[in-house]
Amino acid sequence: MQNSVKLLGISNAIVDVLAHVDAAFLDKIGAPKGSMTLIDEARAHEIYDMMGPATEMSGGSVANTVAGFANLGGTAAYIGKVKDDQLGEIFQHDMRSLGVDVRLAPAADGSPTARCHVLIDDEGQRTMQTYLGACTELAVADVTPETVGNPAVILLEGYVWDIAEGPALAAAAIAIARANGSRVALSLSDSFCVERHRDAFHAAVKDGVDIVVADEDEVAALLQTKSHAGTMAALRGYDNLFAMTRSEKGSVIQWGEDVIEQPATPVAKIVDSTGAGDAYTAGFLFGLTQNRALKDCAELGTYCATRVIQQVGGRIEPGLLADFEASKKPT
Amino acid sequence: MQNSVKLLGISNAIVDVLAHVDAAFLDKIGAPKGSMTLIDEARAHEIYDMMGPATEMSGGSVANTVAGFANLGGTAAYIGKVKDDQLGEIFQHDMRSLGVDVRLAPAADGSPTARCHVLIDDEGQRTMQTYLGACTELAVADVTPETVGNPAVILLEGYVWDIAEGPALAAAAIAIARANGSRVALSLSDSFCVERHRDAFHAAVKDGVDIVVADEDEVAALLQTKSHAGTMAALRGYDNLFAMTRSEKGSVIQWGEDVIEQPATPVAKIVDSTGAGDAYTAGFLFGLTQNRALKDCAELGTYCATRVIQQVGGRIEPGLLADFEASKKPT
Repeated sequence: MQNSVKLLGISNAIVDVLAHVDAAFLDKIGAPKGSMTLIDEARAHEIYDMMGPATEMSGGSVANTVAGFANLGGTAAYIGKVKDDQLGEIFQHDMRSLGVDVRLAPAADGSPTARCHVLIDDEGQRTMQTYLGACTELAVADVTPETVGNPAVILLEGYVWDIAEGPALAAAAIAIARANGSRVALSLSDSFCVERHRDAFHAAVKDGVDIVVADEDEVAALLQTKSHAGTMAALRGYDNLFAMTRSEKGSVIQWGEDVIEQPATPVAKIVDSTGAGDAYTAGFLFGLTQNRALKDCAELGTYCATRVIQQVGGRIEPGLLADFEASKKPT
Repeated sequence: MQNSVKLLGISNAIVDVLAHVDAAFLDKIGAPKGSMTLIDEARAHEIYDMMGPATEMSGGSVANTVAGFANLGGTAAYIGKVKDDQLGEIFQHDMRSLGVDVRLAPAADGSPTARCHVLIDDEGQRTMQTYLGACTELAVADVTPETVGNPAVILLEGYVWDIAEGPALAAAAIAIARANGSRVALSLSDSFCVERHRDAFHAAVKDGVDIVVADEDEVAALLQTKSHAGTMAALRGYDNLFAMTRSEKGSVIQWGEDVIEQPATPVAKIVDSTGAGDAYTAGFLFGLTQNRALKDCAELGTYCATRVIQQVGGRIEPGLLADFEASKKPT
């Protein structure tokens, strides 16, 4: 059995390749602004060849949440597949350097480590072209009582359902959680991902997933609702804990009869909105694993997201928790 | 024969691995603040294992100058050795994406692509630990009339003398320049590098090198002078064109009887001083290859350096030349 940790993330392990582009570039590659498209290796090379000079850094939605959770001071572990190549080494280094317990060794063969071409336009919006590479080889065999252990929370991302053994390995993780008393959280990833896997997500939410973290568009895609009121009404039919972010409108926590409406914190300037949702999830789940009140969890999630949108890059830096606690002291 | 370009850089091809550290970290690895130390592969792994999460981007002093020269609109080419690995692909991509003619194919075997661990402390100062890897395999055989062609200027960096065949390949480049009518510029890299190779640099400056680009500490190390006045007096004994940067004191261009003192442009806040010298060199050499007056070359170099210290990262962005020209128009 692994060391006990508070949070275990199971997700696509991706290195981001970030470059600035103009609107014409997005037209040329046929990418809708703000979209995330899965591409194959040949297309990845084609797009990379067209891109300007880039910067590389570890990314991936749930991986960002796990990194942020560790930087908040939580114990965390991670299951995701990289190859034994330089980008794989970079990804695993960046996780380990935060104290995250990386549970899979890099694969000796197979596809190269995944990369996401992040195309940042003049308005700061990001359009993503993702080559999943080694991620597609994450297998049921990688999700065992030995690799999972008994974390307080297992966090899965919707994108896992895009890989061949994804649905089966998610089911394996849920079964282990049930046996060990872990709670299962599901991040819905993006609304197109929800469209791709609505029935599977719905079945998982009805049976096995305890906590759903998502933005409002993703929840609406899952529940097929058309308005905020419609979504809130539909949520009453679920006994899961929903943590739903709404950008500048804040967030809503709904759990059975409990509904918490958490306002957003106004900021002078959004530097980079990337990772706001992942940071919210890190803060929210950190609070939850500390048995804080739901209102406090929502406040910490909001504090994390507010911090992240005022910096370049989507990961929570160390020291944030102390700032949060200080911000709550009466002056 | 290669396409004719204005600038050919010959240097160490390096990917920077940037991470924030505290002062205790520098003590722990025994690195003097602000220093550049050459390390072997085992030590590189050791230091990387101790570092926090990092960001990767193409670097290297003369490579930065070549990239900046291309972004100013100049035609440029590059000779430097990477391996056929992911970091090598990143380095060559970043150069090619700027239109730089990359003249060596990645090596199929040998050491991995070089990386420089850039440790950024709380004051924003950078301490560098460099693993030269594939750079050490750059050979005389790579510097031929075919790979060099007949650029207006060949720019060598002092760090090339740190590699086994460096002195010989520099001599080969100088011989080709002489045959083809190219001018040879030498960047002195850093003052410790000058200490390591003073006699060789001195011989090259006396015979073969036309232009010396360096900061004042490096020139003082070369000439073994102790004061600005001493350096200026010693320079009169040389017929080379010296472009000497002096941080906030600006720069001095000395060429025979011509001495131009170019003041620095005051800035409200230095965001990141990295690459200021490389950017100055890009602007200065760009002006020179356009046959601009020396005063104008110094102004453009200063403009480039001033821009670069107000941004994160050491490379000149596109569009700078237009801003420079606009800044010179009478209002």
